[in-house]
Amino acid sequence: MNENYMDLAIDLAKKGIGKVNPNPLVGAVIVKNGKIIAQGYHEYYGGPHAEVNAVENSTEILEGSTIYVTLEPCYHYGKTPPCVDLIIKNKFQKVVIGMLDPNPLVAGKSIEKLKENGIEVVVGIREKECRELNEIFIKYITSKLPFVVLKSATSLDGKIATSTGESKWITSEEARKDGHILRKKLSAIMVGVNTIINDDPNLTCRIDNGRNPVRIILDSKLRIPMNSKVIKNKDALTIVATTRYADKIKMQQLLKEEIKVIQVRDKNKKVDLKDLMIELGKIQIDSILIEGGGEINFSSLQQGIVDKVRFYIAPKIIGGVNSKGSIGGEGFRRLSNAVNLKSLTYKNIGNEIVIEGYIKNSK
Amino acid sequence: MNENYMDLAIDLAKKGIGKVNPNPLVGAVIVKNGKIIAQGYHEYYGGPHAEVNAVENSTEILEGSTIYVTLEPCYHYGKTPPCVDLIIKNKFQKVVIGMLDPNPLVAGKSIEKLKENGIEVVVGIREKECRELNEIFIKYITSKLPFVVLKSATSLDGKIATSTGESKWITSEEARKDGHILRKKLSAIMVGVNTIINDDPNLTCRIDNGRNPVRIILDSKLRIPMNSKVIKNKDALTIVATTRYADKIKMQQLLKEEIKVIQVRDKNKKVDLKDLMIELGKIQIDSILIEGGGEINFSSLQQGIVDKVRFYIAPKIIGGVNSKGSIGGEGFRRLSNAVNLKSLTYKNIGNEIVIEGYIKNSK
Repeated sequence: MNENYMDLAIDLAKKGIGKVNPNPLVGAVIVKNGKIIAQGYHEYYGGPHAEVNAVENSTEILEGSTIYVTLEPCYHYGKTPPCVDLIIKNKFQKVVIGMLDPNPLVAGKSIEKLKENGIEVVVGIREKECRELNEIFIKYITSKLPFVVLKSATSLDGKIATSTGESKWITSEEARKDGHILRKKLSAIMVGVNTIINDDPNLTCRIDNGRNPVRIILDSKLRIPMNSKVIKNKDALTIVATTRYADKIKMQQLLKEEIKVIQVRDKNKKVDLKDLMIELGKIQIDSILIEGGGEINFSSLQQGIVDKVRFYIAPKIIGGVNSKGSIGGEGFRRLSNAVNLKSLTYKNIGNEIVIEGYIKNSK
Repeated sequence: MNENYMDLAIDLAKKGIGKVNPNPLVGAVIVKNGKIIAQGYHEYYGGPHAEVNAVENSTEILEGSTIYVTLEPCYHYGKTPPCVDLIIKNKFQKVVIGMLDPNPLVAGKSIEKLKENGIEVVVGIREKECRELNEIFIKYITSKLPFVVLKSATSLDGKIATSTGESKWITSEEARKDGHILRKKLSAIMVGVNTIINDDPNLTCRIDNGRNPVRIILDSKLRIPMNSKVIKNKDALTIVATTRYADKIKMQQLLKEEIKVIQVRDKNKKVDLKDLMIELGKIQIDSILIEGGGEINFSSLQQGIVDKVRFYIAPKIIGGVNSKGSIGGEGFRRLSNAVNLKSLTYKNIGNEIVIEGYIKNSK
């Protein structure tokens, strides 16, 4: 039963996707005498915590009930009073927790306090699922760096375009729609300036109840055309990441258009991605979706900023020595230097097989 | 229950894998009063049919029993008397058949004869599985052309080697072992002469109870080194497929080594693969595994000789514009000309995801 209630709490938590960043997704379920009497979740950034919402949603006396919560209740005063005190005050009998607070300095403190107040505590129910639910939050809160997902849509033989450059569309509509769900989940989307020059995309999230990600354009010299959609269309914030090689006049034009320009260190005359991640972390960008071409995909992997990859593999074969592959650049010269993936999962979406994995070897 | 007995018959049939080509894999189960009383399968090329073996394995009186057989019993005298007569003679009450004879001229004839003799007949139980079991036989008996499987082992980004040419090993031992099972299932293995020159492989089947496939080397000018393992090692037959551009002296040397040389038409100065398939069909090669490099893989797909592809996708990313991909050559210039796959299946073997599909668009 513990697991079922926690599953429900996880489902509730997911309702906050795209709305709570850089805070965690949290769900809470209150059970009394084997009956669910209230539910709640963290609905938006800075809003009441899941426990608070659940308690407020209850019309019954809470004394003696059990609360299931995906994340250890907070201990400190933040934007809201500590949930641990709320639980004690309401005389809950038991607290079932999915995972500990990822901040090692705080982890376990609330649990101790609950126990000291005679409340039974169970920890680690659906822990794996709760950690996955908050993989963005865990990375960001512990490193101050964004959680980065590299997405690619390829043929079975790894191509993202034919030799003539045709790429629309390799994958099915369902798979492309799933890609837009990713844009909602992650705070920002990152592409290279060549994508802007060649395709002039909007980079918005075109699904119901979507939320546009911040658009990050890698542009070491500021070659971005001033009439690009990402500049003209103000539906989402655009950040242009550049280097000391930036065109100064273009910089002024961009600032006049209220585009944020971040100048970071350069690496081989390109934007140093590690440095950029530090800067983006500072402005609360907790997660990034890379939808780059082969060059940016390779640089991201080589510079070790990627946490997770998600490949949509279409049931097609394109072939061609000169057709672009998903990961370009120089490539890893030795197999022993190749990026290894762990915790691989795969499933079917539309006509595609979607393979997801986490980067194993940190560089 | 029908399905369970047919599943057993299919499992029995599979015991003949690698031994019956170019004949079909067939299994038979005899059931009386809800009890299995005998089993049999087609054990080796030219040997007794599954029905005959099952009948002979029975120690009970067969009258009134049911026989489950994966393929419609034979009607004509071939290497053995017709099984349809055996069934009638033994007064079976019922015959349950997986699939009809794939030869359209014969299909259904045995069923008619059984019915005329008062035997109940059920057709199409586990038909999909039975057709898959005999996909080689179905193609070969209806077209006289070999059933061709293209196998490739790649990184998630479609590479078969790093930019420096390192390729050992991209996939895990389990996946490579699974590849050897394929070598047992198919009658022949086909590679290009460059694979022989660069890697000098044995191309044998290195698993327990394996059976070496015939080795087919594509070599338009006869550049094959005379000390290659495929020439010196006589564990399996080697066929060198060449063209009118063949080196005549080398041809004599090969014949002296008892290597079979087949000269076929050329296409762009290379071996015309369609013509080669016709010639190989004539000498009872019913199935071929292509383990080529990118060029041969592309030519095979472009010339439309491939029936099925099997990709082993390793949880690795290699990248590199100049790293070899699984399908090279010119590639299909337009997405509308790309090879489409159908009936895609995927599963996990070792660390790899194995994706299998059938060619949808015949060219």
